[in-house]
Amino acid sequence: MIAEVICIGTEILLGDIVNTNGAFIARELAALGIDMYHQSVVGDNPQRLKESLTLALSRADVVLTTGGLGPTYDDLTKKTVADYFGVGLQMHEPSVKKIKTLFTNLNKPMTANNLLQAQVPAGSTVFFNDTGFAPGIAVEQSGKIVIMMPGPPSEMRPMFINHISPYLQRKTGGMIHSKSLHIFGMGESQVEDTLHELMTTLTNPTVAPYAKQGEVQVRISAKAQSEQEALLLIDPVAEQVRQILGSVVYGVDVGGMQNALVQTLSEKKLIAAAAESCTGGLVSAAITDVPGASAVFAGGVCTYTNALKTKLLGVSEHTLATVGAVSDETAQQMAQGVRTLTGADIGVGVTGIAGPGGGSDEKPVGLVYVAVSSDAHSEVKKLMLSRGHKDERESIRNLAKLNALFMILTAARKA
Amino acid sequence: MIAEVICIGTEILLGDIVNTNGAFIARELAALGIDMYHQSVVGDNPQRLKESLTLALSRADVVLTTGGLGPTYDDLTKKTVADYFGVGLQMHEPSVKKIKTLFTNLNKPMTANNLLQAQVPAGSTVFFNDTGFAPGIAVEQSGKIVIMMPGPPSEMRPMFINHISPYLQRKTGGMIHSKSLHIFGMGESQVEDTLHELMTTLTNPTVAPYAKQGEVQVRISAKAQSEQEALLLIDPVAEQVRQILGSVVYGVDVGGMQNALVQTLSEKKLIAAAAESCTGGLVSAAITDVPGASAVFAGGVCTYTNALKTKLLGVSEHTLATVGAVSDETAQQMAQGVRTLTGADIGVGVTGIAGPGGGSDEKPVGLVYVAVSSDAHSEVKKLMLSRGHKDERESIRNLAKLNALFMILTAARKA
Repeated sequence: MIAEVICIGTEILLGDIVNTNGAFIARELAALGIDMYHQSVVGDNPQRLKESLTLALSRADVVLTTGGLGPTYDDLTKKTVADYFGVGLQMHEPSVKKIKTLFTNLNKPMTANNLLQAQVPAGSTVFFNDTGFAPGIAVEQSGKIVIMMPGPPSEMRPMFINHISPYLQRKTGGMIHSKSLHIFGMGESQVEDTLHELMTTLTNPTVAPYAKQGEVQVRISAKAQSEQEALLLIDPVAEQVRQILGSVVYGVDVGGMQNALVQTLSEKKLIAAAAESCTGGLVSAAITDVPGASAVFAGGVCTYTNALKTKLLGVSEHTLATVGAVSDETAQQMAQGVRTLTGADIGVGVTGIAGPGGGSDEKPVGLVYVAVSSDAHSEVKKLMLSRGHKDERESIRNLAKLNALFMILTAARKA
Repeated sequence: MIAEVICIGTEILLGDIVNTNGAFIARELAALGIDMYHQSVVGDNPQRLKESLTLALSRADVVLTTGGLGPTYDDLTKKTVADYFGVGLQMHEPSVKKIKTLFTNLNKPMTANNLLQAQVPAGSTVFFNDTGFAPGIAVEQSGKIVIMMPGPPSEMRPMFINHISPYLQRKTGGMIHSKSLHIFGMGESQVEDTLHELMTTLTNPTVAPYAKQGEVQVRISAKAQSEQEALLLIDPVAEQVRQILGSVVYGVDVGGMQNALVQTLSEKKLIAAAAESCTGGLVSAAITDVPGASAVFAGGVCTYTNALKTKLLGVSEHTLATVGAVSDETAQQMAQGVRTLTGADIGVGVTGIAGPGGGSDEKPVGLVYVAVSSDAHSEVKKLMLSRGHKDERESIRNLAKLNALFMILTAARKA
């Protein structure tokens, strides 16, 4: 089954809102094993909507629309779809009743256009709107289906999950299930190179890498009749990918590095702490972004000045005067210092030059030292994180943060 | 001039990423006075891209694409566009040089597919990529223009602002210039209500509010022959908006709250410091995200445990035992404590319950205290930052951070 999505709304074309409906529906359709090759956005204009609908129905079996159902749109979507299929509009009595009851309960006068939301093309399947007025509608004719949903995500999402998804499952039979392997320390093109054979020979499950802000994910997706059956296809391939890629795979379906870290620290009953200079709080902020982080994170210090590095972390004035704040010695003393300060099991220290200023030939922008300290494992890494672009401060800080999280994770796993 | 956007990427059709490029480009085109009636998304498939491109060029004067330029895409977009216009691909030597230099600097072997990124259709205008490899490309023929941009927003956005927007301005004749007023502490709908008359009566300049992660911006845009002429139209209206909205306007064209803060601290030669609990480093990370922050930011501490609050910040054990860690007293003592610890002029303290766990009837999720301490101005605010939705941790932490930054800014302005 091939689907297409048309998001209707001038506010999307003006950039006033980001079209999150497109991504949500895409993900849900992929999970149902329904293919999608096109998505489009069109303004609140009947003629252009009709053209987009005609094109989409020429390419797809099912077209899903969002938006254009509210009382201010003059029934744009419903009228266009009804005209396309050559049927009239009629009142959907349960929806009329719902709207009337609500206005009575609110003790507010109901304007006539509110009732227009209860109109549906004759012969439709109507889906209840659990969080708003306008119902969802499916019109089916000669093997083609148009499904209309309201635009607000707060109405569309529950309607899709509770009503549209079961409706589509009845139409398709079968489903898609996926697992994502999270990878750090190997670039997307190298992952692609390494997995090239698997990627090009396998069809069920499929293997596909995605780059995501400094890390790479490999998604393994299988089409099957049930989740259990899908996992029988996925798991051996996931194991094979793990074997091929080795230690750069840091987790499966973990959400992100900070989630994997908090999970590992919890399992091992370890407490971490962070001493940051160039990342300026990003490491602490990432860890504490995970619910429950308070049980495994003592705290962090962001020591931007040398004086504070000495005062709080005990970094030696001699070290700062001789090899400087951006050095492996300083990173190590910061990692040890924050452990002592907080009593944590694992300390991390990050110091470097995020730019744009502050670089020199000897210590260029992008030079970052990350050190980790724990009873079982201590190490320090010298990283060159500049790629020679402008405006790299954010990317250097982000990469330094990911490396720090990964090093805490490595130390936690060895503990 | 009519434009259309085609976002290329199977990961968008699978819902793996939300298509924020569409909204960004839409807003920028609107600011340039360029109309857009359609947007579409298509996967990494040459045939379907060709069809989408043909359709878009039949409806629009300029088609902007994002994505499909990376080394793993077999030059999907460039080849399709070059074929469409009947031209060949050729190496763009400055881009070749850039890529080679980078690999030499990194001391890494360069695979052949990396150089493919330097290929462009013959006769193109090439736009430099300040934050990545793949250059942007414009191909123009018989009054139709196709502009290809890379997919990652971190590359596409600066490229659009620095290179594509000026290019389009030259094409449209005249230009649009804007000023953005940054507003904190008034919601978008209230700003709309307050500015309703200006928004509906003015046509040049136009006045339009945009909500942006906890703050609102009012953009005033004028169409004119030169920037100077545009400013003559904009400035009186900007002043009028400032008068109407009052003290919630915290800056003009400042980029963001942290930029306004670092600028003000620099001008007043003040040093700030942060003591964070529920924001866990976000305040420090935001301030240090601004280049040059090291001159105005002493550092921060992220004291997740009570013991650390007492040890580092001198928060009284009596306070913690009686009114607790989430209280106005604790916030105030944290703000004062971090000043003492670091010798900063202004200290901020943030403590609260970000959730999802840890809330109670008395201290629900979303309760946050922010205190600021300086010689000239000290205050503490009790904030209720929950809106009753699920998964609010990120939004609560973000709003707490913005309030903390705003309170440091307020204190700095009073110093």
